[in-house]
Amino acid sequence: MIVYLNGAYVDRAHATIPVDDRGFLFGDGVYEVTRAVGGQLFEAERHLRRLARGLEGLRIDLPADLDAARLIAISERLLEHNGLVHGDATVYLQITRGVAERRHHFPPSGTPPTVLLGASRLAVPDDVRRTGAAAVTTADLRWLRCDLKTVNLLPNVLAKQQAVEAGAFEAILIRDTVVTEGASSNVFAVVDGVLRTHPATPLILAGITREVVLELAADFVPVALEPIPLAVLFRASEVMITATTADVMPVVTLDGQPVGDGRPGAVARRLHTALRARMARAPAGASAAARPS
Amino acid sequence: MIVYLNGAYVDRAHATIPVDDRGFLFGDGVYEVTRAVGGQLFEAERHLRRLARGLEGLRIDLPADLDAARLIAISERLLEHNGLVHGDATVYLQITRGVAERRHHFPPSGTPPTVLLGASRLAVPDDVRRTGAAAVTTADLRWLRCDLKTVNLLPNVLAKQQAVEAGAFEAILIRDTVVTEGASSNVFAVVDGVLRTHPATPLILAGITREVVLELAADFVPVALEPIPLAVLFRASEVMITATTADVMPVVTLDGQPVGDGRPGAVARRLHTALRARMARAPAGASAAARPS
Repeated sequence: MIVYLNGAYVDRAHATIPVDDRGFLFGDGVYEVTRAVGGQLFEAERHLRRLARGLEGLRIDLPADLDAARLIAISERLLEHNGLVHGDATVYLQITRGVAERRHHFPPSGTPPTVLLGASRLAVPDDVRRTGAAAVTTADLRWLRCDLKTVNLLPNVLAKQQAVEAGAFEAILIRDTVVTEGASSNVFAVVDGVLRTHPATPLILAGITREVVLELAADFVPVALEPIPLAVLFRASEVMITATTADVMPVVTLDGQPVGDGRPGAVARRLHTALRARMARAPAGASAAARPS
Repeated sequence: MIVYLNGAYVDRAHATIPVDDRGFLFGDGVYEVTRAVGGQLFEAERHLRRLARGLEGLRIDLPADLDAARLIAISERLLEHNGLVHGDATVYLQITRGVAERRHHFPPSGTPPTVLLGASRLAVPDDVRRTGAAAVTTADLRWLRCDLKTVNLLPNVLAKQQAVEAGAFEAILIRDTVVTEGASSNVFAVVDGVLRTHPATPLILAGITREVVLELAADFVPVALEPIPLAVLFRASEVMITATTADVMPVVTLDGQPVGDGRPGAVARRLHTALRARMARAPAGASAAARPS
């Protein structure tokens, strides 16, 4: 696999960074994972807008030549070079505050950020989707700026590991008795016929898939941006998670107890179908010839 | 400078890690900064006990041969190789969950952790100490396991940068109206003749210097392990911070307002003198011949 690292395309096996990179020493950086279907990036502009907000929040300056168009061009080149122009893939992008002598405060102005992009095959978990996923609930221990998509991901790592060890697909995070989101997903529930999810506050990372799903849902189900108390989650008729790598995934057990009738629900199924249909649509400006057949 | 990286001693300029290191991708690791004076590590055993607790908290297994004795031997060799056997220095140690394909949960059992140690000259900020330091207060945005010394340090970075831009030495973190600690230090205040600091809960990283200072203080001042409300901090007769790289540093202004009479106080001075005297004592087992003259 070829990755892009600081201006060069290099073999992933030989892509290295200095130990003094602030990503390694402080987790001082942001990232994005963008979906690609048939070699076409899905909602790239939204990912890049969120990236820009994250860089602004951390006050990391990108070189002027690394604008959105350039990042998209690099992403597309990586998809092509790595044989990912058919089927499902992801593009990973990470930007850190660069390499500098270790001290907490920012390095001197002009220190170049570290820029990494890579592309990988995505095994979409459609087998899990057919029967529905298990989830566990756990305390949300994260900081108070979860709206920044940073690589300070240790609490997410520990929560996800807890899920995996319980044989579950995802850990649902609970802060002050309400659901915030999943370890690497957003959480929705159908409660009394209304599709609910946490509003986009600093306590969640508002996913791109979450945004698209909210748009799609507006066509056929009432939607409320309200935190879901844990007790309400347990009486929901449907629970589902959304993520760039999982699409819309119905959750059929919570801490081992069935959700609703214990089977994937109609709202999740309909949203998933609508999401995949939207992914299959040609992006604006793409010619028919450029689309996979 | 020579560093130790995964079993080899290499030039720092050429010490690199793969981009798939979980330290870089997730901040999935712990670290320690240990003081050395005259080539002798100060309180190495306490640092290594804290490291062991951190590794246990993150569930990172060290290879059996990297026990405390071996880590101390590597540290001492780095001090010697880098010409740091006289004066003040620090040894930096970082251990991450190693290199693996990116996914949140733990990599396969047996994945070797990444182990980095380096040694650097320490410019002890005695010039700042003479007149006393400025500090600013800011919100403590960190996660709820601050007792683990992890490299998820972005909130600390942002707080420290805020201090630097205000011309201050440190940012003092406030959670729910009480002082927790500094961006890279612990905070003490003398209030009504009592030396107070936050108790060692998951909301602070209990520093080694903090522990030693608490022992030293017991000889001459009443001590209370109680959180300090922000309003109480502002009426303290003395405020000071402790850190491996700053010893006992009196704080003479808070958000631009003077602390007490605006000059370093007697308790801070006495504690600093006692701390430096303890650093100068030969460690148990060291022969007189091995001590710097």
